[in-house]
Amino acid sequence: MNENDITVNLAPGSKIDLVDFENLTFGNVFTDHMLICDYKNGVWEKPVIKPYEPFLIDPSAKVFHYGQAIFEGMKAYKDENDDVWLFRPDQNYERFNKSATRLAMPEVPEEVFIGGLKKLVEIEKAWVKKGKGNSLYIRPFMIATGPGVLAAPAVFYRFMIILSPAKSYYSGEVKVLIAEHFSRAANGGIGAAKAAGNYSAQFYPTKLANEQGYQQVIWTDDATHTKLEEAGTMNVFFRINDTLYTAPTSERILDGVTRKSLIEVAKREGINVEVRPVLVSELIEAAENGTLQEVFGAGTAAVVNPIVGFSYKEKYYELPKQENSVALFLKEKLNNIQYKLAEDTFGWTVKI
Amino acid sequence: MNENDITVNLAPGSKIDLVDFENLTFGNVFTDHMLICDYKNGVWEKPVIKPYEPFLIDPSAKVFHYGQAIFEGMKAYKDENDDVWLFRPDQNYERFNKSATRLAMPEVPEEVFIGGLKKLVEIEKAWVKKGKGNSLYIRPFMIATGPGVLAAPAVFYRFMIILSPAKSYYSGEVKVLIAEHFSRAANGGIGAAKAAGNYSAQFYPTKLANEQGYQQVIWTDDATHTKLEEAGTMNVFFRINDTLYTAPTSERILDGVTRKSLIEVAKREGINVEVRPVLVSELIEAAENGTLQEVFGAGTAAVVNPIVGFSYKEKYYELPKQENSVALFLKEKLNNIQYKLAEDTFGWTVKI
Repeated sequence: MNENDITVNLAPGSKIDLVDFENLTFGNVFTDHMLICDYKNGVWEKPVIKPYEPFLIDPSAKVFHYGQAIFEGMKAYKDENDDVWLFRPDQNYERFNKSATRLAMPEVPEEVFIGGLKKLVEIEKAWVKKGKGNSLYIRPFMIATGPGVLAAPAVFYRFMIILSPAKSYYSGEVKVLIAEHFSRAANGGIGAAKAAGNYSAQFYPTKLANEQGYQQVIWTDDATHTKLEEAGTMNVFFRINDTLYTAPTSERILDGVTRKSLIEVAKREGINVEVRPVLVSELIEAAENGTLQEVFGAGTAAVVNPIVGFSYKEKYYELPKQENSVALFLKEKLNNIQYKLAEDTFGWTVKI
Repeated sequence: MNENDITVNLAPGSKIDLVDFENLTFGNVFTDHMLICDYKNGVWEKPVIKPYEPFLIDPSAKVFHYGQAIFEGMKAYKDENDDVWLFRPDQNYERFNKSATRLAMPEVPEEVFIGGLKKLVEIEKAWVKKGKGNSLYIRPFMIATGPGVLAAPAVFYRFMIILSPAKSYYSGEVKVLIAEHFSRAANGGIGAAKAAGNYSAQFYPTKLANEQGYQQVIWTDDATHTKLEEAGTMNVFFRINDTLYTAPTSERILDGVTRKSLIEVAKREGINVEVRPVLVSELIEAAENGTLQEVFGAGTAAVVNPIVGFSYKEKYYELPKQENSVALFLKEKLNNIQYKLAEDTFGWTVKI
């Protein structure tokens, strides 16, 4: 995208000096600028980069009433030469437009999504800190701004990108609860879309899990609750007898970029990976007969998140301590690609 | 609620004279005022009635990213004495707070929800037109205004009420498609909540149905697609052999106020009603052997909406013309209660 195709109104000053980069909590601090691009009368208008600030919206905007809202989560990393890199932005762009279609929203042009975020991140380069664990979290999203309380797709939409400096997502030991009643997605529903509505469904069951001492829920299929699907904001992997298992993506399961990248890295490293439905009963059996080695979540915010134990039908299963954790090995390998500390043999990184 | 507990800032003038009440399309025109009540630090602030206008919101507000948004749909009716009546507002209030709990949002106090809407409708009395078919559609809703892109419930919320003058919802003949693949709700999901996210899931399948000439979809259970559940924005009734059938409410099916009111009216009128799961195969069989008499939707916006035919597995089933339509009979009975043209033996109407 030609840089003249984006209107840029820079903030008079930066708030970066007020930010304590050593003590960030996830997603609370935003950079100086944001990108806005409006869709009106069937046409995407010229994107605008402007100071981050609240914006005006009609009380009847369909995003508030009918949940037309989708997003992506991505990260930018700074290497030792102060260059800033994106990780597989094409994958997020593709998934974003798939989500858009599923929610009857317009597709966003590549020059707005990719071109816009490159330009925005370039302007905010100082917010990307060097060093492993540091990154700039990128949140592209689209909402239905069109007014009216008729239950039908909106006519006006707004695409935005906001940026938040991040350290690693989770801290402490993560214990999970395996869902026996609640679920996150229906067959023929929107579970595969990164739709805002999918997340609101998870908060209450997750709150109940939190109250019992579990940080996350591993969702099971809603019809039988026998298949392990994904965790709150992550796909999930199981290491049993030195093989990694993860559920295939489906209408109910998000096609995670970290998930598929880990599968490729694992294969390159000679680790057995099987993508197939994983039953709760298999997990319990493996935990009981000692073949279950690791369980971990995979997602952009968390990258890789080892799980220390899980609960099912009120029984808690502690995972064995791993001297050679495959989860941490894969995280290291993937991080090395993302931070340009190892050769990117996959061609996944894109320089800003 | 004491009227002094609501701050009222009246608009300098009214736009009512600019509105063509004979040619309203649903949900496009809003009255002069709206109610806003913010929830901060665990406390509901004083509600404010002020001119209807756009409001400022942070780009990271959780409603945009994680879909914490719920609503209700209600109507106010004017009788021949110019008195304005609500219909079973207690039912909407109760359901609203159930939705709130399921989405990990705070409950709204009765004096804010009921007290606020009575005060607001009283101020907007001139917008409620007399005569059957005319009403004031009331849209209470709550959104997560709290900022931050961490996938967790927000800390700040906003409850609002907006009002839109309405004529009858649908026009023309309604044909429906019975869902064979797509679905609106999961077991253990949020289908029973009036959550914004549930509606966004329906737009794309409904668009596909529209393209084939069907105005609505009748959803089936997501696991087997054998049970008839509800239509896009309505519960659904089937009249077979002079008995009315409708699905029981469940985690997947909304507890519609019109649905349950129609059941009570039908029973009072001596009509057989069976609340039980209705199979697609039963409907097809009844259509084929001539015992299927009527299919109709029931909802606040539509009240009662007769369906003229349905399609399943690419076969279209035309419903027989009814000389004595139970759908229209029940609509008349319910409307008479709502418009105070018949005695309200149930005690459902509440005067403003």
